[in-house]
Amino acid sequence: MSVSDRLFKLRSALATLAVDAYIITGADPHLSEYLAEHWKFREYMSNFTGSAGTVVITSEDAGLWTDSRYFLQAETELQDTGVDLYRMGEPDTPDYKDWLISKLTPGSVIGVNGKTMSLDEYRNLSEKLKKADIRLDTKLFIEDDVWEGRIPVPEDEIFELATDYTGLSRVEKIEIVRQEMKKNNATHYVVGALDEIAWFLNLRGQDIDFNPVFHAYLVISQNNVNLFVDPHKLTSTIGKQLSKEDIKVFLYDDFYDFLKDIPALSTVYIDPQRTNSSIYNFLPSQTTKVEKTGIITHLKGQKNTTEIQNIKKAMVKDGIAMVKFLHWLTNEVGQNALTELSVANKLREFRAEQDHYKGDSFNTISGYGPNGAIVHYAVSEESALPLESKGLFLIDSGGQYYEGTTDITRTVALGPLTEEEKRDFTLVLKGHIGLALAKFPQGTRGVHLDILARQALWNEGLNYGHGTGHGIGHFLNVHEGPQSIRPQDNGVVLEEGMVSSNEPGLYRSGKHGIRIENLILTIKDQETEFGEFLKFETLTLCPIDLNAIDATLLSPKEKEWLNNYHQEVYKALEDDLSTAETDWLKEHTKQI
Amino acid sequence: MSVSDRLFKLRSALATLAVDAYIITGADPHLSEYLAEHWKFREYMSNFTGSAGTVVITSEDAGLWTDSRYFLQAETELQDTGVDLYRMGEPDTPDYKDWLISKLTPGSVIGVNGKTMSLDEYRNLSEKLKKADIRLDTKLFIEDDVWEGRIPVPEDEIFELATDYTGLSRVEKIEIVRQEMKKNNATHYVVGALDEIAWFLNLRGQDIDFNPVFHAYLVISQNNVNLFVDPHKLTSTIGKQLSKEDIKVFLYDDFYDFLKDIPALSTVYIDPQRTNSSIYNFLPSQTTKVEKTGIITHLKGQKNTTEIQNIKKAMVKDGIAMVKFLHWLTNEVGQNALTELSVANKLREFRAEQDHYKGDSFNTISGYGPNGAIVHYAVSEESALPLESKGLFLIDSGGQYYEGTTDITRTVALGPLTEEEKRDFTLVLKGHIGLALAKFPQGTRGVHLDILARQALWNEGLNYGHGTGHGIGHFLNVHEGPQSIRPQDNGVVLEEGMVSSNEPGLYRSGKHGIRIENLILTIKDQETEFGEFLKFETLTLCPIDLNAIDATLLSPKEKEWLNNYHQEVYKALEDDLSTAETDWLKEHTKQI
Repeated sequence: MSVSDRLFKLRSALATLAVDAYIITGADPHLSEYLAEHWKFREYMSNFTGSAGTVVITSEDAGLWTDSRYFLQAETELQDTGVDLYRMGEPDTPDYKDWLISKLTPGSVIGVNGKTMSLDEYRNLSEKLKKADIRLDTKLFIEDDVWEGRIPVPEDEIFELATDYTGLSRVEKIEIVRQEMKKNNATHYVVGALDEIAWFLNLRGQDIDFNPVFHAYLVISQNNVNLFVDPHKLTSTIGKQLSKEDIKVFLYDDFYDFLKDIPALSTVYIDPQRTNSSIYNFLPSQTTKVEKTGIITHLKGQKNTTEIQNIKKAMVKDGIAMVKFLHWLTNEVGQNALTELSVANKLREFRAEQDHYKGDSFNTISGYGPNGAIVHYAVSEESALPLESKGLFLIDSGGQYYEGTTDITRTVALGPLTEEEKRDFTLVLKGHIGLALAKFPQGTRGVHLDILARQALWNEGLNYGHGTGHGIGHFLNVHEGPQSIRPQDNGVVLEEGMVSSNEPGLYRSGKHGIRIENLILTIKDQETEFGEFLKFETLTLCPIDLNAIDATLLSPKEKEWLNNYHQEVYKALEDDLSTAETDWLKEHTKQI
Repeated sequence: MSVSDRLFKLRSALATLAVDAYIITGADPHLSEYLAEHWKFREYMSNFTGSAGTVVITSEDAGLWTDSRYFLQAETELQDTGVDLYRMGEPDTPDYKDWLISKLTPGSVIGVNGKTMSLDEYRNLSEKLKKADIRLDTKLFIEDDVWEGRIPVPEDEIFELATDYTGLSRVEKIEIVRQEMKKNNATHYVVGALDEIAWFLNLRGQDIDFNPVFHAYLVISQNNVNLFVDPHKLTSTIGKQLSKEDIKVFLYDDFYDFLKDIPALSTVYIDPQRTNSSIYNFLPSQTTKVEKTGIITHLKGQKNTTEIQNIKKAMVKDGIAMVKFLHWLTNEVGQNALTELSVANKLREFRAEQDHYKGDSFNTISGYGPNGAIVHYAVSEESALPLESKGLFLIDSGGQYYEGTTDITRTVALGPLTEEEKRDFTLVLKGHIGLALAKFPQGTRGVHLDILARQALWNEGLNYGHGTGHGIGHFLNVHEGPQSIRPQDNGVVLEEGMVSSNEPGLYRSGKHGIRIENLILTIKDQETEFGEFLKFETLTLCPIDLNAIDATLLSPKEKEWLNNYHQEVYKALEDDLSTAETDWLKEHTKQI
């Protein structure tokens, strides 16, 4: 069945229900970044496979709203579907809400599956529609009526992550969360975000590619911990252990009914950005709400010492895989046929050789020359360019290990570079070092530090269009909050124990793309009469390509950072490599 | 009559009215930073003279809420008044709203003069009180009942600022504002901020110390401009000219009645931060409101080329006065008796020698040694320290000229300095240069650049507790919006033509204070495939004390900036100085 047939079927269903338009958010009920197949309704209805985008369908029109990362991809994928592309961020593009209002008349009804929309977005939307006298029906779960051959929710087995890795037992985590709930006078805390549930319970799953999570909901009260999960996924060992710890297991599908029965005098803690609107709407309206960033979001964001020790072990493993790969790549290129795709697969093989490797943490971005300039380039058999022994090759990848999650980008010279390529690379490196060397008082937010990674570029009229740093989980999602280092301010303070990426870049369309990404840990610097100061410790262990650097552009302080970094990389990795690899590493970490 | 007698009288008045508490915001109906005597009711009721603070009075208690800048001053001024000090920002200090709720019972009534509270603050307050079932009466103008010998609203003459200074005529400004109103579908635009009215009408007044403004309100519609001002203040020439330009003059006191008569189908543009709550509440409730930062705020913030040319002339004048002063000071210190107060007066004399000088732009901060560490130090006969020929002296001052408003801080070595003093001075200078050299893409906000002025200090565990930069008017208020360079994000983008201060500092309690402040103009840098880039041009012309610098701490780029700056200062000022002063300037702008 083609997309236009599916649109026809959906429109018929809407007509029967007397609904004038339908919104498909592209999210699952847990507002996950990566989705199980079961939840890819937006893709089913539009062919669009990007990670962000909203489809809106009226009786006459259908549109996809997505951002500049996906303009090219969406153009291709939407061809002949009957779905128009609306380029977000361009001056003439209306907001999808305003577009809907312009298409509909007062008294109209719009449907959406409220479980796939955050409470914040729902409020924003419903307020706008109310002013236009349009009603929003959030209980229209139309997917099952329209979607033929929908894949069921996955049922993969859940496994336990030992306290050797997590540092805190479930019992300890429950106690800490309850303390935080008390500080907020909360009797209940409802959690829908899958990585938060996995972290809290020291459990991991396999329901979603790249993210070791499982589909579940959680309601924590001062007396109970209630877990809503398909019981088939729990081994009997885990099931018994949970029951021993007074964690009650309910069916996944019973969650919303459970919410209805929360006593009216309760105070319920929810995160309006990570809680879907149906959760809010199913809670008895008389309950008091505490709406804040999740308690677990903060706890999970500030890694404990056991987690940090393990993350450092994961960094050694990942560094070894990367060095083996780069050694292999620089020897093979120009000798044997390589493509963007074949080398990405080779890198996965090197990672898979490491103990406790549990897959990649996201789909590797492998871009040679002009393809490096496509920020979210997804290589395929058709698109994969052959690698030649010249120019820049960008590879952004990461692994999942029991010890931790990694995320690293290296841009390497496959042979001779132009002056511009070297200068661009060095300016990006200056930004990377600028952020790595930052020292800052307690209370500083990512928005304050972002410029350190951009200043060298801005001085030359250059810039990059993505954020500089995101949080990263401990054997969990490669993107997590609450912190963020970018020009947009999300109000979150950088705290000790947070692990973030440091990934400035530069993309010249049609020419080359450069990104240098390490993970950085926030640690104490010093305490003075002016307060407590923090700094970063770089965690990622892999050489930065000296062949791509114009050393005349580096200050003495920047050279010192690079030399120290390369010395640490060499020391950490030399023991686990072959002689040839060690020689390669020595050469590629030499002092400049 | 003592403050406690006044409190007794106010409490009696409240009892008669059956009102349980009263809030005195310390603002005038125009929400001005500096007040005419007529509006200093908070000072009358508490003795507190600081620029920010709220007094709250119940039948039993009275409190002043103010911030850390004023803790010491408030402690002294509140002595024996019966008003308690509540230190804002300290962990145990309740918000005054929560404090009020804790003191009162449901059903209580709180009075406030709604004209002295911004719409934003009023909404915040009334929402909180509503939840506690407490009523807020904003029409209780109790001042006149309680305040004996209240000084009337000033009636000083208004004068015209020619288009040679303003660049745009009133007729042109009216046209521009109406275009902006149309873009926002606004039929009316209500303005209460005095500097905005003065800028829009090319008029200046003398009602308030330091600020060349006059008390007025303005209602602009697509057909009319309605000015509410005491007509005695207008000369007949100005009166006739306004009438010729179809600007209707009404009595100041008729403003609120006029609002009531705005047609119900109108759309009224107001700025909720700079409009008092009574304006909102007097507007017919059926009118549509557009609530945004003022149209005039933006227009006034981005100086036009004529204003910029004039501001540069004002900088030369102010530079000459400063150089004459610094030459005099460095010769006199150690020779004749000088105090913080006497030298501040001397500086005013030098400024007064300049053509078109119209007074100072704020009360000079003149702090020697440890007094320099008191950020908002107000020198008095009693506090004034004698200056000796050693250590650091900080002087922060500014002048009003027809051509523009100035604001400059210099910290100078009066003789030998300690290692720490020199190092501290140089670190502050590094920050000052860091911001002065910034280049950044269109869309950058002050919050992004603030770190450039702090990084050198943060690296050493040092910091300062105030913002780095504020906007400044063109022959208007020394503090103006909309932009701001500080860790708090107000969402305003830095635009071409904005004039801001660049004033990092460092304050060691009991030792010394350092601040280096120049004004900087946002100008174009370059346009590339990555967009439009901006940078700063430093406007202030006055040497930075080379005797206070440890040149070994400066990078080559920083030295280059300082040398270029000093060369420009010398060139701009040498013609208007005596031989001795020129020699002094040459020595103090020598290349390092």
